[in-house]
Amino acid sequence: MVSAAAYAVTAPDSPFEKTTVDRRELGPLDVLVEIKYAGICHSDIHTARNEWGGTRYPVVPGHEIAGIVAEVGSEVTRFEVGDRVGVGCFVDSCGECEPCLAGEEQYCVVGVTGTYNARGRDGERTQGGYSTHIVVTERFVVSVPDGLGLDVAAPLLCAGITLYSPLAHWGAGPGKKVAVIGMGGLGHVGVKIAHAMGAEVTVLSQSLGKKDDGLRFGADDYRATADPETFRDLRGRFDLILNTVSVNLDIDAYMSLLAINGTLVELGLPEKPIEVRAFTLAANRRSLAGSMVGGIAQTQEMLDFCARHGIGAEIEVIPASGIDAAYERVVASDVRYRFVIDASTI
Amino acid sequence: MVSAAAYAVTAPDSPFEKTTVDRRELGPLDVLVEIKYAGICHSDIHTARNEWGGTRYPVVPGHEIAGIVAEVGSEVTRFEVGDRVGVGCFVDSCGECEPCLAGEEQYCVVGVTGTYNARGRDGERTQGGYSTHIVVTERFVVSVPDGLGLDVAAPLLCAGITLYSPLAHWGAGPGKKVAVIGMGGLGHVGVKIAHAMGAEVTVLSQSLGKKDDGLRFGADDYRATADPETFRDLRGRFDLILNTVSVNLDIDAYMSLLAINGTLVELGLPEKPIEVRAFTLAANRRSLAGSMVGGIAQTQEMLDFCARHGIGAEIEVIPASGIDAAYERVVASDVRYRFVIDASTI
Repeated sequence: MVSAAAYAVTAPDSPFEKTTVDRRELGPLDVLVEIKYAGICHSDIHTARNEWGGTRYPVVPGHEIAGIVAEVGSEVTRFEVGDRVGVGCFVDSCGECEPCLAGEEQYCVVGVTGTYNARGRDGERTQGGYSTHIVVTERFVVSVPDGLGLDVAAPLLCAGITLYSPLAHWGAGPGKKVAVIGMGGLGHVGVKIAHAMGAEVTVLSQSLGKKDDGLRFGADDYRATADPETFRDLRGRFDLILNTVSVNLDIDAYMSLLAINGTLVELGLPEKPIEVRAFTLAANRRSLAGSMVGGIAQTQEMLDFCARHGIGAEIEVIPASGIDAAYERVVASDVRYRFVIDASTI
Repeated sequence: MVSAAAYAVTAPDSPFEKTTVDRRELGPLDVLVEIKYAGICHSDIHTARNEWGGTRYPVVPGHEIAGIVAEVGSEVTRFEVGDRVGVGCFVDSCGECEPCLAGEEQYCVVGVTGTYNARGRDGERTQGGYSTHIVVTERFVVSVPDGLGLDVAAPLLCAGITLYSPLAHWGAGPGKKVAVIGMGGLGHVGVKIAHAMGAEVTVLSQSLGKKDDGLRFGADDYRATADPETFRDLRGRFDLILNTVSVNLDIDAYMSLLAINGTLVELGLPEKPIEVRAFTLAANRRSLAGSMVGGIAQTQEMLDFCARHGIGAEIEVIPASGIDAAYERVVASDVRYRFVIDASTI
């Protein structure tokens, strides 16, 4: 058993406190990761504050993990001590159902084991990446390619794959017109990846405040959604729209921006149901779809793609003592574009 | 100019009355069709009663038209006098936009000209198929293959293509699990076509009242949606669900019946927006989509397919004097499964 330092909350309204968590004894297929960086995802905040319900305290959030292999189990074949690795949103799945066998563990019929606030297949509660170490079975560990900094790679393990997967699935590439709603932690990575895939990229943001950044990340166009002209102008234009905003928007209005056979993919998981008119769907054979992170094989593919194209998240590195303040700033959309905890400060 | 006998309504609450409508002088590309049968579609009722707004009276509904070519314009090449033909939901489109050039006239960027209650490109109001004759440019006339009765073919021009198009687009066929919500005028044709395409077909109907018919039309399974067990049992099962019901259902519950990458297609155009939870979409990378009839080339393909597989609509033939009574029965879902007007009684 490894006792790892960690930052946890003990109640919805409590600040983070330094503590220790017990990581399991290394099994034959386990990898012990010395965590170097952990990104702060909005899901961490929802869970820490029990905003989705179901949080069991104390909880250590963090599912954007990058680090170095410190020890491997006796039967581990894919990793060696010293390897640069990442761990994302889940750390286990049944391995036997159709989606698992197809490498789409995120849709495991039995259900994946979340990296934190879940019960592992051994019956123990999982605790996440705001910590110095974590033990994960090798099937759920990915390699971080050389040339991709561990700090800018960490957010790719959730934000990156959440955008890469639908872009790949719906065929973003040359000749395709892609829009990204929201220029936050998810959206800014989506712009970079969609541009690198060769698509024509438009950002749809409330204001033009981050326009210079958007164009620098690879956007071809940047429009303010507060301006009604935007919706008149871009009607029927896009093949694919990725919505990264987690509050409820007027999705029916955004759907009208889709071309024939176009798809709007919901990634932000807003609280209330999404409303869309049947006629809006029928008019251009439009689709409203969802997508959930991505499988392990695709996560590796995404990291390799990002390394090849020099894509990392735009980050602000903070010490562990700054998590509470960072949460406030994430909720206020005051971050460009992802907070990453330096695990050496834990 | 041809003066054709027709049945029209002059106000939302008026009964049908016999009248005459002027059909335009045959242009070089026009075809004069002697109408033999016209199906009664729920859209006819919405329009006659101005339930969607925008109805201009008097109006002659009818866009499920089957008949015989009575005369052709000087430059018509595809039809001869005596040919068995059909006319569907639209009679013109711009012919120049991308969808038109791709044979998907239903998504014409300029907008198609509806078969009735629309303004034609010549500026005149269009009047539909509850009539003895209609003049249509040959590009919007399709052939009814030998062996397919004109009476059972008529409803295929709207109901048939409305179901065939999404079944073809989303790849219904061997190994695919398809569900059809609603066993009415649209649904019963959908069951027949999906079965003929080789898919495994399940009907989701409020009760088991039409189960024997459903199985006879080719359904492999037939479930009552009033029974909560149905939703537990079929969770995550279908690749494609076609919703033919025009009142608002709990679509989120039906979406949960979709397998990975499954799509629910809305065909019934309910009045209020459709509500779906983002999590339901994300859970299996599900899509909620729309579809609008089909292009002319695909309508011909559908008629050829139906002739090859011996598929016609199940109909009750009525005289024109019975239209008002038939409307009442359609609204009460008291028809198995489509009313067809015998145009010789007009």
